[in-house]
Amino acid sequence: MKNPKDASQRIITLLTDFGTKSGYTGCVKGVILRINPDVQIVDITHQINPFDIWEACFVLSNSYQYFPKDTIHLVVVDPGVGSPRKAILLRTERYFFLGPDNGVFSYVFDKEKILEIKSITNQKYFIGKPSFTFHARDIFAPVAGYISLGVKIDEFGPDAKDCYKFRIPSPEIYKDKIVGEIIYVDKFGNLITNIDQNLVDSFTKKGSFEIVFKKRRIKKISLSYFEGRRKEILAILGSSGLLEISSFEGSAQKILSGRIGDKVKIEFKR
Amino acid sequence: MKNPKDASQRIITLLTDFGTKSGYTGCVKGVILRINPDVQIVDITHQINPFDIWEACFVLSNSYQYFPKDTIHLVVVDPGVGSPRKAILLRTERYFFLGPDNGVFSYVFDKEKILEIKSITNQKYFIGKPSFTFHARDIFAPVAGYISLGVKIDEFGPDAKDCYKFRIPSPEIYKDKIVGEIIYVDKFGNLITNIDQNLVDSFTKKGSFEIVFKKRRIKKISLSYFEGRRKEILAILGSSGLLEISSFEGSAQKILSGRIGDKVKIEFKR
Amino acid sequence: MKNPKDASQRIITLLTDFGTKSGYTGCVKGVILRINPDVQIVDITHQINPFDIWEACFVLSNSYQYFPKDTIHLVVVDPGVGSPRKAILLRTERYFFLGPDNGVFSYVFDKEKILEIKSITNQKYFIGKPSFTFHARDIFAPVAGYISLGVKIDEFGPDAKDCYKFRIPSPEIYKDKIVGEIIYVDKFGNLITNIDQNLVDSFTKKGSFEIVFKKRRIKKISLSYFEGRRKEILAILGSSGLLEISSFEGSAQKILSGRIGDKVKIEFKR
Repeated sequence: MKNPKDASQRIITLLTDFGTKSGYTGCVKGVILRINPDVQIVDITHQINPFDIWEACFVLSNSYQYFPKDTIHLVVVDPGVGSPRKAILLRTERYFFLGPDNGVFSYVFDKEKILEIKSITNQKYFIGKPSFTFHARDIFAPVAGYISLGVKIDEFGPDAKDCYKFRIPSPEIYKDKIVGEIIYVDKFGNLITNIDQNLVDSFTKKGSFEIVFKKRRIKKISLSYFEGRRKEILAILGSSGLLEISSFEGSAQKILSGRIGDKVKIEFKR
Repeated sequence: MKNPKDASQRIITLLTDFGTKSGYTGCVKGVILRINPDVQIVDITHQINPFDIWEACFVLSNSYQYFPKDTIHLVVVDPGVGSPRKAILLRTERYFFLGPDNGVFSYVFDKEKILEIKSITNQKYFIGKPSFTFHARDIFAPVAGYISLGVKIDEFGPDAKDCYKFRIPSPEIYKDKIVGEIIYVDKFGNLITNIDQNLVDSFTKKGSFEIVFKKRRIKKISLSYFEGRRKEILAILGSSGLLEISSFEGSAQKILSGRIGDKVKIEFKR
Repeated sequence: MKNPKDASQRIITLLTDFGTKSGYTGCVKGVILRINPDVQIVDITHQINPFDIWEACFVLSNSYQYFPKDTIHLVVVDPGVGSPRKAILLRTERYFFLGPDNGVFSYVFDKEKILEIKSITNQKYFIGKPSFTFHARDIFAPVAGYISLGVKIDEFGPDAKDCYKFRIPSPEIYKDKIVGEIIYVDKFGNLITNIDQNLVDSFTKKGSFEIVFKKRRIKKISLSYFEGRRKEILAILGSSGLLEISSFEGSAQKILSGRIGDKVKIEFKR
């Protein structure tokens, strides 16, 4: 593996609900490149549903860990822009994260060792007098640019306390069943649950089981979509390490009218 | 701030109506990178409504100025491709602009000091015999690539005269009111008017006023979306420095069926 | 023309059906950049219709050849992920291609001189234990990253035999007519046929002809969309060198309800 020769070749990722139509992401990229023209900018997505902080939080949790050390992750889904919500900057062992303090980093708080959290307040690093409506361009983009140049994170503001975290829904575990729920629906219509591989493994090896979703009873966990007949409903351990209700070449979401929050049960039979 | 070490590290932005589905933007990027593999290509958007020159013109006007000096802005919304419309190349104090001579640069002509305008005619810099349908790939992309390598712009053709400009609609100003109009609807459904911050400031500080849009009467200008209740209609000075009719976590466009061309009034009461 | 100074500045293109919403492309890019942070990643498209191998095959055939020598083209439309279908790696005179062995490279096999084909099996270059559902992240992305660092392609596995190829539909040629078909509908609604410029030229110069599509009779081949009146139906030789049924500022697809597989005839009259 190669490492960037110096900080100025760092990577900045973008994850927003800006869409790609109105040029807002162009502004953000321009501001970053004006500060550091050598940085590499990578779009994770700009298609988060407008104002859907939870979706941003989940999509981030499935992507950030694949990037090289020192990558700067900029996450802006920010219905409270212009309100007193803090703008925060996290440093973990491997990455930097910037965004509004509204819960988008809940999974990061859960999974990563946090070394520092700063409240971004130092106007020296902002673009002009920040607007009240576009902090991605006026605050987050320039701060990300300066971090990529090696500016120390104490420069940007004081320690932040009491950051906002979602309660990440965890499955209920009983003697004879697990009750989880759908937490995300992906682009292919796969219904992704909050039941992870370890939990599935620890229970399913004890005996036979059935997965129950919307009156469907699924009797095994498939290794790949390919095991099903076309549009058959499958349970599968997906690429994020979570149990998914899926369908081979079909959309489980459409076939079953599945939604975020729908319950999924694993029932055991000894 | 750092500057690119030499011209070959310049940035080329793309703004088109090609969509991202059919691979056309891939061709454009391939051609550029074959000429200069060190250039950085940034998508502003490829989601302009097909053939909507005005939309391209407005989106460009909100993005180009955030990029570093010497950025090359390539704008192709080109219903007249294959017709006698000129292909033009503008040099301003800070940037280069390339695209069809159909009005896409109207705001640039308005806001920037233009140093040179060339008509792109020198086939030496084209890819093969240009098609009549895809000048972005065959003419604009290679010319942008060669500019990024430092080729002087006189090389590409003679001075261009009489370039096409839209009449940019300006608000009508009366003693007791301003009548503007919606000129753009963004991705969040914000209705953006042609009434700018200076105009609003110069009038509203004189006394009380009401903003009238589709029989709604709005009595103040909010600083941020956050000041409204959920889905309440607000007037706000948006990130492009223009008055917007907006809604907190809602789409003003949907709530009010707002469209480009709809009138917006500010009425004064002394 | 400049060439990248060393292999590590190579370009990797991505062509998938992942969409841009769920962060899957972010994972792929992260994995590549972790292996080679200096590589340039270019999106051709992520908007292929889910599981539509043919569409990916066609879009690839119109884009890959515009990229610099040694570009690595990563194509993942992979309904059979997790099945015994091979993962393959092609080296041609100018490029590398990686993807599932399901027909996506049919045009490449047809047009390019293939130097080597490998079956990707060497787990040393995979990310962890590959999932059964996301080979783009776990297998194709890291292998593309290592190729960009100059790893020799024999490293990745043994020669692959009997790769899957689509029968690419070719027009039927009779004494007095050619019968072709629509093989792709682009973003503007242009209906692209499998009748290429050479075939059109060799026949149409012999005498007068009519192009027949869905009871419409078109008497000439236009040079550009611009020759038509607004929304008039035209026949045109498009940017991919194929005969298209098109419309000036309109969608021929919508106007004529055109679909892939619809027949297009050229009838000759001596």
